[in-house]
Parts: sequence; structure tokens; C-alpha cells
Amino acid sequence: MKKAAIIGGTGYGAIELIRLIQMHEYIHLEKIISHSQHKKQLYSFYPHLTNFIDDPMEELEIDSLKEEVDIIFFATPAGVTKKLIPKLIDSSVQCIDLSGDLRISSREQYEHWYKGEAAPQVALDLAVYGMPELYKEQIKGARVISNPGCFPTSAILGLYPALEQKIIQPNPIIIDGKTGVSGAGRTPSAMTHFSETNDNLKAYKIGKHQHIPEIDQYLSTAVNEQVSSVFTTHLIPMTRGLVCTMYGQLTEGITTEGVVSLYKNYYESAPFVRIRPEGEFPVTKDVYGSNFCDIGFYADKRTNQLIIVSAIDNLVKGAAGQAIQNANIMNGWEEGHGLNSIPMYP
Amino acid sequence: MKKAAIIGGTGYGAIELIRLIQMHEYIHLEKIISHSQHKKQLYSFYPHLTNFIDDPMEELEIDSLKEEVDIIFFATPAGVTKKLIPKLIDSSVQCIDLSGDLRISSREQYEHWYKGEAAPQVALDLAVYGMPELYKEQIKGARVISNPGCFPTSAILGLYPALEQKIIQPNPIIIDGKTGVSGAGRTPSAMTHFSETNDNLKAYKIGKHQHIPEIDQYLSTAVNEQVSSVFTTHLIPMTRGLVCTMYGQLTEGITTEGVVSLYKNYYESAPFVRIRPEGEFPVTKDVYGSNFCDIGFYADKRTNQLIIVSAIDNLVKGAAGQAIQNANIMNGWEEGHGLNSIPMYP
Amino acid sequence: MKKAAIIGGTGYGAIELIRLIQMHEYIHLEKIISHSQHKKQLYSFYPHLTNFIDDPMEELEIDSLKEEVDIIFFATPAGVTKKLIPKLIDSSVQCIDLSGDLRISSREQYEHWYKGEAAPQVALDLAVYGMPELYKEQIKGARVISNPGCFPTSAILGLYPALEQKIIQPNPIIIDGKTGVSGAGRTPSAMTHFSETNDNLKAYKIGKHQHIPEIDQYLSTAVNEQVSSVFTTHLIPMTRGLVCTMYGQLTEGITTEGVVSLYKNYYESAPFVRIRPEGEFPVTKDVYGSNFCDIGFYADKRTNQLIIVSAIDNLVKGAAGQAIQNANIMNGWEEGHGLNSIPMYP
Amino acid sequence: MKKAAIIGGTGYGAIELIRLIQMHEYIHLEKIISHSQHKKQLYSFYPHLTNFIDDPMEELEIDSLKEEVDIIFFATPAGVTKKLIPKLIDSSVQCIDLSGDLRISSREQYEHWYKGEAAPQVALDLAVYGMPELYKEQIKGARVISNPGCFPTSAILGLYPALEQKIIQPNPIIIDGKTGVSGAGRTPSAMTHFSETNDNLKAYKIGKHQHIPEIDQYLSTAVNEQVSSVFTTHLIPMTRGLVCTMYGQLTEGITTEGVVSLYKNYYESAPFVRIRPEGEFPVTKDVYGSNFCDIGFYADKRTNQLIIVSAIDNLVKGAAGQAIQNANIMNGWEEGHGLNSIPMYP
Repeated sequence: MKKAAIIGGTGYGAIELIRLIQMHEYIHLEKIISHSQHKKQLYSFYPHLTNFIDDPMEELEIDSLKEEVDIIFFATPAGVTKKLIPKLIDSSVQCIDLSGDLRISSREQYEHWYKGEAAPQVALDLAVYGMPELYKEQIKGARVISNPGCFPTSAILGLYPALEQKIIQPNPIIIDGKTGVSGAGRTPSAMTHFSETNDNLKAYKIGKHQHIPEIDQYLSTAVNEQVSSVFTTHLIPMTRGLVCTMYGQLTEGITTEGVVSLYKNYYESAPFVRIRPEGEFPVTKDVYGSNFCDIGFYADKRTNQLIIVSAIDNLVKGAAGQAIQNANIMNGWEEGHGLNSIPMYP
Repeated sequence: MKKAAIIGGTGYGAIELIRLIQMHEYIHLEKIISHSQHKKQLYSFYPHLTNFIDDPMEELEIDSLKEEVDIIFFATPAGVTKKLIPKLIDSSVQCIDLSGDLRISSREQYEHWYKGEAAPQVALDLAVYGMPELYKEQIKGARVISNPGCFPTSAILGLYPALEQKIIQPNPIIIDGKTGVSGAGRTPSAMTHFSETNDNLKAYKIGKHQHIPEIDQYLSTAVNEQVSSVFTTHLIPMTRGLVCTMYGQLTEGITTEGVVSLYKNYYESAPFVRIRPEGEFPVTKDVYGSNFCDIGFYADKRTNQLIIVSAIDNLVKGAAGQAIQNANIMNGWEEGHGLNSIPMYP
Repeated sequence: MKKAAIIGGTGYGAIELIRLIQMHEYIHLEKIISHSQHKKQLYSFYPHLTNFIDDPMEELEIDSLKEEVDIIFFATPAGVTKKLIPKLIDSSVQCIDLSGDLRISSREQYEHWYKGEAAPQVALDLAVYGMPELYKEQIKGARVISNPGCFPTSAILGLYPALEQKIIQPNPIIIDGKTGVSGAGRTPSAMTHFSETNDNLKAYKIGKHQHIPEIDQYLSTAVNEQVSSVFTTHLIPMTRGLVCTMYGQLTEGITTEGVVSLYKNYYESAPFVRIRPEGEFPVTKDVYGSNFCDIGFYADKRTNQLIIVSAIDNLVKGAAGQAIQNANIMNGWEEGHGLNSIPMYP
Repeated sequence: MKKAAIIGGTGYGAIELIRLIQMHEYIHLEKIISHSQHKKQLYSFYPHLTNFIDDPMEELEIDSLKEEVDIIFFATPAGVTKKLIPKLIDSSVQCIDLSGDLRISSREQYEHWYKGEAAPQVALDLAVYGMPELYKEQIKGARVISNPGCFPTSAILGLYPALEQKIIQPNPIIIDGKTGVSGAGRTPSAMTHFSETNDNLKAYKIGKHQHIPEIDQYLSTAVNEQVSSVFTTHLIPMTRGLVCTMYGQLTEGITTEGVVSLYKNYYESAPFVRIRPEGEFPVTKDVYGSNFCDIGFYADKRTNQLIIVSAIDNLVKGAAGQAIQNANIMNGWEEGHGLNSIPMYP
């Protein structure tokens, strides 16, 4: 049994971590830390937690924290982790960062897209990108995990095999992203105001989304050349769920069946990727509340394009679930421990 | 470990049972039975079940079934259970019926409200009303459980203590019910067509709802006189969740705080009833995906009325979750086994 | 042709007034006034207005305004109108106030429920309650209109005839209100945050809603005695639409058909009240985007209660549409001018 | 004043035509024809029409109909128009077909994509594609209009100028379509069942959508070579609204500002196309209930792609509104007559 702390206790990432840790037999949630709301009860913000979490939230004291717990989940806004991680360098505490602070290896790229100073190099050097389907070995030995972004999880899992196996051209790759509103977090804004969001569909951050460099960094790895993906994002009137619909030019006359077979092989030891048979595409409810990434394909002979549809729950595989999956791998537990429940449907 | 079968495998009740049984350590789902879809794979209708259920659905053969399993969950449309139960009288199989067939003890009342012949008397005599907060002792010894309706679960849990303790008058009791659309099941209809239901609110079955006699039967028990509740139902543009807002005339000058205290005592050994403190009312998301019934109160001095708001997830505490809770009690397992996960939020 | 100004240009009330005035042949929208956003273009907040409104919003200058326009619509937050109206006493400008400032005739009641100082007595004395179905004659001669609240519009239109005609008892009257989220306005908050509101149902302001004294004031008028209604409100995951489901004890053995007939007679000269035949109840989409109030009934012999379901679009009949209807009557135009379009469906 | 009939009275296309015709001063709706529901009242299916439509629906008698009305709107399922139009060849009645029967000029293409026999050649020869922004002159002289599909309206208006002006390559063109559920019509199905559709996003008909040949036919016209677009469709949990997000490779170093300017010029005499300034993209609510097509752009230097976002209300500009626009042009009325109301917001 390992002891864990969550920093950033009042956001949706933390709330989903709490739900998942409660189903985990080897992690005990020792404390929930919130700078802005410490001493308050989490159930006063989230009554659904009544009877589950009785201790009040605590103020962050990083020096004692690293002695008290074995794992720290950073469910923090941009910019917090990069300040805290350096103080944990000399400890043995496992750090899993759900923010974007450690995702971009190029400091210039980070500063261009995130409009802020990059994390200290020592933190970037320690951080392993926590996408278990691609980097399980590195995660096993890591002490600091940079947990992937929600769109990058869907996009990279959907594109990586096709790019690496060279069945599609690396440029142009079009990624049309669609997400539920919970990805925008818990802070109210005009963008997420019910009356403006319900029965509405909004394209947003076109050409400016901070997930672009993250996606490109890993797609480029797949092909050993620079990939500059075309990535757009759309806000969908639903709470959870995220789909990337992706388009790449086929390099050869592979059929849909062939693509399905290739992906099934590629992900045969990945318990959370489910490849759909020819003719089927995932819907977001297929993965609701679960850690799955479901992927479907159409190899379009007419246009010579491969169409890939990749669906996740943005709060689970796109955030808290993947963080738990990383914790499992780091600690030698079964990769899916605590994550094996059936998606909630309908 | 007990073996279970679900009859009625393609409805939402069955799907929720499957989700919950997968988290249960003492129940093994041996077979899923569907008359209309036998030999087909359940995941062809419900792709979210991919990797979870691999055996095809089976045709019902009641004589062999009662030898093969220990528990049968009837997630069937009205009228099926009453035909099947008599064939199981002489077996030791535990039967939990999620339909309304066995809920009404008066044959006349059943026939008036359900517009069909009542179940055989032997079946009615065997059936115990599966509301553990009120009838735990009877459930312990039962072999046939009539699992409560969704609205009755919310309404009876909300009203019973106030009526029994005589802090409100038994007549008139107003119950204004509001439910998500999943309560209407999986069969498409104009009533549940997205374009007609989204951004819309519909009052329906006013004065005609078959849950009326069920509610009255148990409220009457509370007060030892006939209660004729005024019950209306409204379809809300949400998938899951059900609230009854209830109104009864106060008999004495009890405060909201006093009511809260009374209910906390009444339900102190009921793990799935959460009483809200004064000034708070539950929302349906507080119980989303969980077996909780959350209840809030306002004792209105101005009008001398007690207002009670009682929220459940119609598919869990209102159906499959309560069925598992009953199975736990019947088998001497912890009442909440397999049902202790945190509600999904947001 | 009369010239109009709207004060409070960036709220939903103003936006709906703009939509309706654009279809009105006798009102010209001269200026849109916004204290917080003056000099800015309204279409920068509301791109749907592109090509319709080209002049920037203006700062309020009450002395010149009263010379420049014939009608002022106050689509302002609580507390603004009561300060401005006294400055318009000596002018001939027509004032239609969509806020609650002038709705409560008792200063004590106002101060109890609204937690603020009541409007100057001179303003209260001038104000006529703008519910044309009940007070058309008074509206004809009025210069200041207090436009009714959204819930009171639905509740009073639904209950007034039954109370006045004494077919139900005046106490207790139960009013269970349900509203779409647009009624909460455009300012983002946790209450209206999409992720917290979607697929959710919230009871709110139980026992504390400021529409209670407004409803009671006019229901008491109907019966010449004090009515203290039991009124609750629920937030529904939809943008527009409001229903009150109401319950009163029948005084005599009237049938549903009899009630339908009574209401049809009562409202025979009211173009925006549509009485449903026996067995039918309105849904909010029946009145979407329109000025109708649709009402259905069930006289329940079993419980001796009359159930009334009254549906409006909270932004039209519950706000801007009723304001235009009042303007029409004040100016001798056809009551429904500019308001006769078919509800939008689906 | 012209007399009109609608064939196919109970579908959403007809209902939206009825709403729009009621605001039209030069069209009188003479009769509503429904084969399946003739003699019934439309308001029995659509209570929102109470007080608006009092005559019952009629059976189709094509020979007398062509004498009785001046305009026939075909709001019919696939396959009806192609049988009826030949019987109207010798009459002078104006025919506006909202179905897809006459949209595809190549019989082979039609039969490939629509899986049925193409319309008689005489009907295809008469039909003019009713997209006024491109074919206004042909529409003026037409007697038979093939009203464009919803996705093609959004896609072609968004892409045509860029292709014709050769600022993007004709291949590959990626069109990622997203639509509200009302586009699927009024017949209930699993696809449109609320519980399966709410809080969900579904890719559907990938590679198989019958709008593909329609889009390609007109995009090919723009460039005088074969365009084979990559087109996908996604069902969004909203009632109305449709967006195409489109991607094409830039042929030259044009800026976003340059594209905006080009489109503003191209559509300067098109009253229903609104080009957004640089940095802004339309949301579907911007056009809700209106005949507008709003378009925004991003010329992405990083990837050398032009991203185009084009939003319509699928039932208005994507169906009934465009049909009225065509009727206006055919009859020499102002192009926007009856269509000039402000979009409904929120």
C-alpha cells in the first residue's frame, strides 16, 4: 500500500482521481491539498463526496509532504508543477503531473505555445511522457511522469501506428478534435456558461491550441522527421468525452481490414486500447467513465485517405485514469488495477 | 461465489446490472438471456461491453436455468415475470424482479393501473418488496424479491419517516416527480426522440402513472390508513437521474433542523441514504452512477408545509443497484458490497 | 412609429427585446444603453447580431434620453430601475421595467424578500403590473409598467381563474416550478456552469425565491384573502422554457372537461393563452421562442386535487415578449403585433 | 400573393416551412399534404401549431393540385419527388424539392450513392440547383428547384470561393461535418434515441454519406476538374445547427486577412452569408433559427493549410429557409423576404 497526495484538490482532475483511487487497493489517499481552499471540506464544494472524504483539505507544505507520501498527483493549473518539482528532486516521492508543464521537451516550443517560461531543465530531464502504450519501459523506471494532454492522448494513440508503419504520409496530417466541456475545468466562464454552450457547437483556439506542439513532438518521433499537424478543436455540448477524427494520405493500397489488423497487432498488449472491426466507429459513450481509447478506421479508396476516429473520456484516459495507469506501472502493479470497470452506459 | 443469470439482456436495466456485477466479488454472471436476440453478441448492441462479455446471449430455458444458477435477475418488460415465477416455485433459485409485476399486493389495484391480469397469487405471496431501508429483515429470508420502481424508491424513502413519525399529515401528499429519459428504456419512440426531448420538459402520464398504487401501498403502511398521494411525472432532458419534490402539511412546529435530525436517526444504519444538512438540497449529479438516495428538507413556517427533495440515479438505486443491494442482503454479504464506488462527477 | 431605448443592453432580456423589436413595425430601436460596455459594439459580444445592430452601445444619460425616445425598456439588474424611474416622473416617456423593482406593492414584503430598500413610493404608485390577461385596462392607461417575473407569469395565469372562480381552495396551493438556465442570465457562475448543469437537475432557493411575494400578491387578489403559496424552483438542463406544475384542492366535483371549458371562456380574448384539451399537457417546446402560455389540466377524482401545468418561454412571455405585448396595449396597437410568429420546433 | 402546398406535412422540413411561410407576405399556405396522415390535424402531432393551422391535412391528388396552387414544396423522403415531378412537367407550377432526388446530375453517381434508380432524365434536366449564392440567375428562370442538402450548403459555400480563386489545391479537400440531430428527421430510431445521443458524439456513415457526390459535383465545377472530397459526418447532441470544418492546402502565401477580404468581396451581394473577421469563428447558435451561413477562416502558415469553419441552421439555410429564398428569387421578390429575422439567442 502506497500513500498518495493530490495537489489541486478542487478541480475536476482531482475529483476524478479521488473517484478512481477509492477503487484502488494499493493506493491510500493520504491528503488532498488545496492552496485556495485549505481547511475547508471538499464535500462542501462537491456534495457527491459526502461520506467518502472526511478530512479537510490541507495547505501545501512541500518539505513535509515529500516525507509523508509516496506518490504526489499534481492536478494543478499550468505553472504550478514547474515550480514545485525542483524541490522534490532529492526525494524519492513519485510525481505524476497532470498539467502541461513538463510535456514539451523544447523550451522554445513551450514558450511559444504556452506563453510562459519553460520548466527548469532538471525537471524536464527527469520527466517521462506517461503514455503507457508507447513508453511503458521508460515509465517503469521513472520517478517523474508528465501525464499526456487529453487531445494528444486520443490523437497520438490514433495516429502513431499508421505513421510508424508508414501506411500514411506524415504531412499533412489533419486532426479535427471535439471535446466535452469538462475539459475546460471548473472555473465558470462565458465559454462554458450553460446557456451559451447548450445546443451549440464552437470551434475554438484554431491554430493556437497548446496541445499542438505535444502532438507534433510524438508524431515526429514516430517517423523520425518533423510532423506539423493541422489541429483544430471544437467544444461539444456534452460533459465528458473527446473524439479526434484524423486524416492522412495512404502510402499504399491497404484496406480497412488491413489497417484494423495492423492496429490490433500493434496494441495487442495494451489493455486500454480497443480496435473496432471494419465498419464500426466508436462513440464517446462507449468509453464514458472508463480508461479506454476506442479506435475505428476507414481506408477510403476513392480519396486515398485513411480516416481514423479515436474516442476517450477526457477526464479518465485523458487525465486521471491515465495517471493511475502510470502509477500502476511505476509501482509494478497490474497496469489496469483499479481501472477495470465497465464504461457507464447509457 | 454465486452464479447469476439476467433475463432481458438488451435493456438498460440489464446493462446496468452487468456493470455492477462486474464489480462484485461474490456474484459471477453465468449467462445473459434474451428471447429476441439470443445467439447474438451483446457487444454488437452495446460496443462499450467489448472485452467484457464474450459469450453470446442465450434463449430462455427455464427448467435448466433453475439448476444452473443461484440468482436470476428479471430485467424484463411488464408481464414476463408473472409467467415465469410460478415455474420456479419449487426450486431454490433466488429471484429478483426489476419489473412491476409483483409490486402491487392488491390484484384489483394492479389490474386497474397496469391494465393486465395480476400475477398468480402464489407469486405475489412469495414476493418481498425489496426496499432494504424499510424491509431488511424480510429481505434476508426472501427467495423472491420485487425490486421497487424508480419513482417509488425516491418517494417512499423521502416520505416514510415523516409519515410514520406523524410530523406531516397523510393527506394530501403531493409528489412532483422528475426523471431522466433512460427510465423510458431503450426502445425508440416519439417520447424519447432526441429532437423532441432535448431542450424540452414534458409532463406525462398525469393521474395515470403505474407507480401511484405502489407509492400509496407503502405510504399507507407507514400511517396505518389509506394514503392517496397526488403524483405527477415530468421528463427531463437528461439521461440519468430522478428527483421527487414532495409536499406535506406539518402537524407540529418542527424546524428544518429537527427534520434533518429525525431523518438522520431514522436512516442511521442505511448506508445508501444520505441526509443533507439544513439549507442544502441534493442534485441528481450528486448520486450519478451510484446507489445513493440523497434527501434534503425545508420546513416552511410561512406555509406550514414540509418540502422534501429526494434524488436517486434511476438506473442504480431506482433499479439495478437496489437489486444488487437486495442480493447482498439475501445472501448475507455486506449490504453495500460492489456498490461502494463514488458517484461520477461531473 | 415610436422610438425605443433599451437600458441594460448586454443581458439576455435585452437581446430578446432586440430580436422582437426587429419584427415590430411600429417600434424603432433608437439606442441600446449599457453602462459597463458603452462605446462597444453589441455584436462583439453577440456575433449573431452581425448586420443587424451597427451603432455602438451608449452610456446612460437619463435627462437627454427622456427627450429622445418614447419608450424605455429597463432590462436591468435588480436595483437600477428604482433609482432611475423617479427622474422620469415628469416626462411622458413610457417605461417598461423587466426587473423586479416595482413588482411588490408592500414595501415590507419587498425588503424581506429582495434584501434591499424598496423603490420610492411615487414609482410604486405609478407602476401597473403588466399582465395583460388580467390587467389590460389598467395597462392601456399606464405610463410605467412593472413587467411580471417569469415564474409568476406561468403560475398566475395558471391559477388565477381557478382561484377566482373558487373551484380550488386558496390554501394550500403548491407550485412546483421548473426553469431553463437562461433565466439565470448571462453572468457565468458555478450554478450555470455547463459541466455542473448538463445532465443534472437542481432544486434551488427553496423557500427563499423572490417570486414568492409576487405570486402571493396576485393570487390573494383573486380570492380577496391572503394566499401563501408553497413555491419551489428547479433548474433544468435546457436553455429556454419554464413550467409550473400546480396543485390545489378542488372545492366541488368539477371534471377536467369542466375546467378546460372554464379556462377557455376565461381567456377567450387573450390571444397568447392556449388551453389544452382534456388529456393533453403542454411541453416547453410548444411555446419555444413565442409569447404563448399553454395550460393543461387534470381534475383528479381519486385525490380531489386539480393539477395544472402551465408552460412559457421564460425569455418571451416571461420577459421580453410580455414587455412588447404591454407596449402594444399602451400604444393602442394590436395586442399581438410583432409577436405572432409560430414557435420554433423542434 | 402566390398559393403554396407542402407535400410531406409531418416531417421537420415541412414544419419549418410552415413557420417561415407564416412570416411571408406573398405566399399563402393553401394546403398541407400527407399521405400517411391525411384528414388528421397537424396540431395533433405538433401542438405548437395550435391556433395557426386549422385545416386537416389532405391526401395527395397531383392532378388537381397543380391547378390549385402556384408553388409546391416537396418535403418528402427520398424517392417521392422523382415519381411526382414527371406528372407536373406540363403544368406551370413551381416545384421546390427539399429531398435529394434531383441533386445529382450523373445517374451513375446517384445510383451508386443513393442505392436506387435515378430520377427520370426529364426531371433532372429541368432541375436547377437552388444555391442562390452561386446560381441566382439560373434560379430566376427555373420552374423546378433542387434544394441543396444541409452539409453541401455549408461545405460548398465555405469552399467554393477558395477553390474557384485557386487559393487552395483542389485535392485533398477534407470536410469534417458536425450536425445536430434534427437533420435525421422525426422518425425515432436507436441513432436518435435521447439516452443514446445525449452526452454522446457519434461519427456515422463514414465514407458512405449521400452528400459526398453532391459536394464533389459543385466543387468540381468551381475548378473545372474532378474534386474528390474527404467527407465525414458526426452527430452532435444538439437539436439544430451544422458546422463543416474544412481543410485545404494553400497555393500561395495568402494571410487570413486576405482570405477574409476575398470572401467578403465574393459574397458582397449575398445577404445570407456573413464573413467573420480574422480571429473569429462562427458557432451554430449564431445562426440558430435563421437563414445565415456564417464563415470564419484561419490561414495557417505553420502547416500551409487554410482552415474554414462554416455554420448554418440545418433546418433553415440547410432546408426550409433556402427553399423560401429560392421561391423569392423565382418570383422576383426580395431575396430575403420573410427570412430577415434575427437568430434566436441564447
